Amino acid sequence: MQQKTHQLSISTQGRKLYDITPQVIDWAKHSGLRTGLITLFIQHTSASLLINENYDRDVLVDLEAFFNRLVPDGDPLFIHTVEGPDDMPAHVRTALTQTHLSIPLVDGKAALGHWQGVFLYEHRHVASSRRVILHLIGE
Amino acid sequence: MQQKTHQLSISTQGRKLYDITPQVIDWAKHSGLRTGLITLFIQHTSASLLINENYDRDVLVDLEAFFNRLVPDGDPLFIHTVEGPDDMPAHVRTALTQTHLSIPLVDGKAALGHWQGVFLYEHRHVASSRRVILHLIGE
Amino acid sequence: MQQKTHQLSISTQGRKLYDITPQVIDWAKHSGLRTGLITLFIQHTSASLLINENYDRDVLVDLEAFFNRLVPDGDPLFIHTVEGPDDMPAHVRTALTQTHLSIPLVDGKAALGHWQGVFLYEHRHVASSRRVILHLIGE
Repeated sequence: MQQKTHQLSISTQGRKLYDITPQVIDWAKHSGLRTGLITLFIQHTSASLLINENYDRDVLVDLEAFFNRLVPDGDPLFIHTVEGPDDMPAHVRTALTQTHLSIPLVDGKAALGHWQGVFLYEHRHVASSRRVILHLIGE
Repeated sequence: MQQKTHQLSISTQGRKLYDITPQVIDWAKHSGLRTGLITLFIQHTSASLLINENYDRDVLVDLEAFFNRLVPDGDPLFIHTVEGPDDMPAHVRTALTQTHLSIPLVDGKAALGHWQGVFLYEHRHVASSRRVILHLIGE
Repeated sequence: MQQKTHQLSISTQGRKLYDITPQVIDWAKHSGLRTGLITLFIQHTSASLLINENYDRDVLVDLEAFFNRLVPDGDPLFIHTVEGPDDMPAHVRTALTQTHLSIPLVDGKAALGHWQGVFLYEHRHVASSRRVILHLIGE
């Protein structure tokens, strides 16, 4: 049994879903392991992780439209507004999605379904640099 | 340290929470391992996984009522409607719940609490066949 | 490769986010392992787990304000009201947040980001005792 770790640094330019599927797939493939468990962990509280459809890009547009309506910027409900009207909505969106994801490694590959992509969801409007820790245990 | 993997194929007949607790518990029990980590991963983007109460079935009715009100079918907000009015809502519901679950294995058993059940949440109205990968690492 | 397990018992006094970061960090640090995967699993369906900002406590106030508006107590939508008006909302809030969290162990430490804290989110108003299973695999 072995472990591998890696860190992704993702430059984000505003609120959007960023497809990191290729990085995850490539890293898993080159790990040399055949069976195991891959875990992604994002070290932030205003950006999150998500697995969703990566074929029709309209899905990403609609996901953002939904979260934008559910957690509107500048909502007078919020008192934590230090970094602007998108500050607290970013924390809520993070709470409603994922800070970590685990994906089995099967036959040397991340066992994603045919339509599944792995996304970093940036919730702030400002450009940022986001760190995602990758961990793999297996053999 | 050892690993075990398995695949569940679940036939779904429309939008509903399907209790897969027995399959998970049985597989863990027959793994022969005593301590470890069980991970479930669903290979779809319009069905998801969820742990919730499995005693009073009214909880499942109410969960569905809540998600149906929060993410209504045919919402004019959505542009991705290729497969019908429940297509994009299924992706949003998946984003709001889980694509994977991890449960510790303790004393040879999945360490679920007394009232916890493991559910596959089918978000589409059409019948479907859903794949869940099970992974266990431990000893 | 080794495994460590532990159980936290958290006394809650009503609906609130309880910071359990110190317990998680300390347990990981004293495990003697350097690289691995930490998993937390809560054995309840009306309390959940969450990673979010642990610096400005207003974030916790706003998170609760958001969930309170999204899933109001006593909502006439719900039929499962056995334990009172906060019973079913607690299950929905659990569904929208997390029953488990995984965090990589890097250089002997839980790899939390600078602003990240680990919280137990109690969704019931009554005092309760909550169990969280900790699992660590690594070396």
